[in-house]
Amino acid sequence: MIQAPFLLYLGHSSDSVGIKTSRGLATFRSGDCLGEFRHDDCPLTLGLPRLTIEEAAAAGARTLVLGIAHAGGAMAPELIDDARAALEAGMHVASGLHHRLRDVPVLVALAEARGLRLIDVRDPPADLRVGSGEPRAGRRLLTVGTDCSVGKMYASIALAEGLKARGLAADFRATGQTGILIAGGGIPVDAVVADFISGAIEQLTPARHDGGWDVIEGQGSLFHPSFAGVSLGLLHGAQPEALVLCHDPARAEMRGLPGRKLPGLEECLAANLDAARLTSPQVAAAGVCLNTASLEEAEARALCRETADRLGLPATDPYRFGVEPIMDLLCAAPSPPAPTASR
Amino acid sequence: MIQAPFLLYLGHSSDSVGIKTSRGLATFRSGDCLGEFRHDDCPLTLGLPRLTIEEAAAAGARTLVLGIAHAGGAMAPELIDDARAALEAGMHVASGLHHRLRDVPVLVALAEARGLRLIDVRDPPADLRVGSGEPRAGRRLLTVGTDCSVGKMYASIALAEGLKARGLAADFRATGQTGILIAGGGIPVDAVVADFISGAIEQLTPARHDGGWDVIEGQGSLFHPSFAGVSLGLLHGAQPEALVLCHDPARAEMRGLPGRKLPGLEECLAANLDAARLTSPQVAAAGVCLNTASLEEAEARALCRETADRLGLPATDPYRFGVEPIMDLLCAAPSPPAPTASR
Repeated sequence: MIQAPFLLYLGHSSDSVGIKTSRGLATFRSGDCLGEFRHDDCPLTLGLPRLTIEEAAAAGARTLVLGIAHAGGAMAPELIDDARAALEAGMHVASGLHHRLRDVPVLVALAEARGLRLIDVRDPPADLRVGSGEPRAGRRLLTVGTDCSVGKMYASIALAEGLKARGLAADFRATGQTGILIAGGGIPVDAVVADFISGAIEQLTPARHDGGWDVIEGQGSLFHPSFAGVSLGLLHGAQPEALVLCHDPARAEMRGLPGRKLPGLEECLAANLDAARLTSPQVAAAGVCLNTASLEEAEARALCRETADRLGLPATDPYRFGVEPIMDLLCAAPSPPAPTASR
Repeated sequence: MIQAPFLLYLGHSSDSVGIKTSRGLATFRSGDCLGEFRHDDCPLTLGLPRLTIEEAAAAGARTLVLGIAHAGGAMAPELIDDARAALEAGMHVASGLHHRLRDVPVLVALAEARGLRLIDVRDPPADLRVGSGEPRAGRRLLTVGTDCSVGKMYASIALAEGLKARGLAADFRATGQTGILIAGGGIPVDAVVADFISGAIEQLTPARHDGGWDVIEGQGSLFHPSFAGVSLGLLHGAQPEALVLCHDPARAEMRGLPGRKLPGLEECLAANLDAARLTSPQVAAAGVCLNTASLEEAEARALCRETADRLGLPATDPYRFGVEPIMDLLCAAPSPPAPTASR
């Protein structure tokens, strides 16, 4: 999809959640990441060598990845300047923002003149259809969240890997720009036209008959007033057999919405199960993934234990403690019967 | 927005719900509608004079309105041929389909050559922001439905007119192509990029301080697996004080989904109230609008009575019996207190 090695862009960001696309590549495609580019006012680092555009080009970087994200996804003037510098240094430029590189004439002209590519990862396919909700074959797991950016992508990748480690066929199905860059494919569901949300997910995860799993990356939260529509359409399109709830215990308020509290885990899970039943009557919860990065290990273990007891479900931090407890539950569950068209 | 008089397009349609845009204009802007255009295989009529394109042009029609709709909104070859004929006869062409007239090169070239306009009603504004869910001033009513195309637009217009008849300021806020053509403005919420659904509705109905109402046209249904994401984002963005539930008792299955049953009225209303509380904690139901076109008058009256008793809410057919019962309830309710930012 995009040519490695990458130079990962942090720019002027001071929001550690906002650089999650760059961080995702640094984590999951570390071998392809040559360094990070940040301005002097950026307090963040991914732990990669800090390179100027020119240094990165000289070291062989092929693509500058604008791996920052923020609500609305506007293309700031500084960002355009930096993208221009990368093109001038001979690099392709990839972006996951809502605003498209191809809509910035100066970048389009420069890329054409130099024979370089502008890659807008958030371009959905042109041939989407509306969803049908028709039952389809295959086992599907969807990660859902109490909020945006609480670890759904990370959990999804870890769960797909966990299933493979148990000898099952499993595919991570990316629905956001970071996941798409990591997986090399997917559909940016928050960028499709609203009428096609559930249809896009039906298309991303068509019927499968090999007994394997599609592990679908969730987006947003049913409790986030900016994005709940995306989350609901995704839930209906996914037609999941299993839900895994993701949560960041350090998150004091909904992302981008000062003062708005996160839902409780029980409330959030119940609402997701309820809504999912519209297209997947047998849906069940399969576990909870906590992002415990803010906690000491003992606290993190205690929180997982307490959460598991309270919800009666396996609870883990997939990064810190792995996904085995959830695997045990998933692999113990019988395959669902073949779907029928009756409802 | 578009130049009258109109020639309303029925084309080859045999689906009476699918021509709802043409029918809406015939009903609410009858003075602007010169006639209808249909092919010989079209069994439907709006009761307007049937005109060929040439006859309509000769009679002074200024715009051919492609007032048909179907899931996905594709632009069929016959439709393009008919649009071309209209341009050749000197008429503008307006469309509410997802596929854009401006994406059909032959139409673009012809319109340019003749100095005529192609109007894509379903083009959302370019400057949308993501929703915030922040409390805002003003009284807002949203129509919600058990299904698509059950009379939400009609009910919304009737309710806005009813409020005006009581001496209150009230505006119909259109969210679909038919409503937009009737009102001369609005935002086609099913055509916005998924991340901006609730933000689009916040923008369509900003804070108002005149004591008046925004009556917002709902879309789809929380129980329609193709479109529930749109309905939920619309509900959150609308931040409604009052919901009116719309239903067609003759609808045996969800539109476009053979075999899928409609939700019960109680279940549907409860789910909408529940979801609406995320941004409007004080939301309440204000009534039920039934489309009783399929029933004899006595049956229709009995159904309204029975529904009102069962739900403890005013129930009416706005077309047949008016909206007075709902007005009585709305006008008896005290104005809500000014919103605060605390949640």
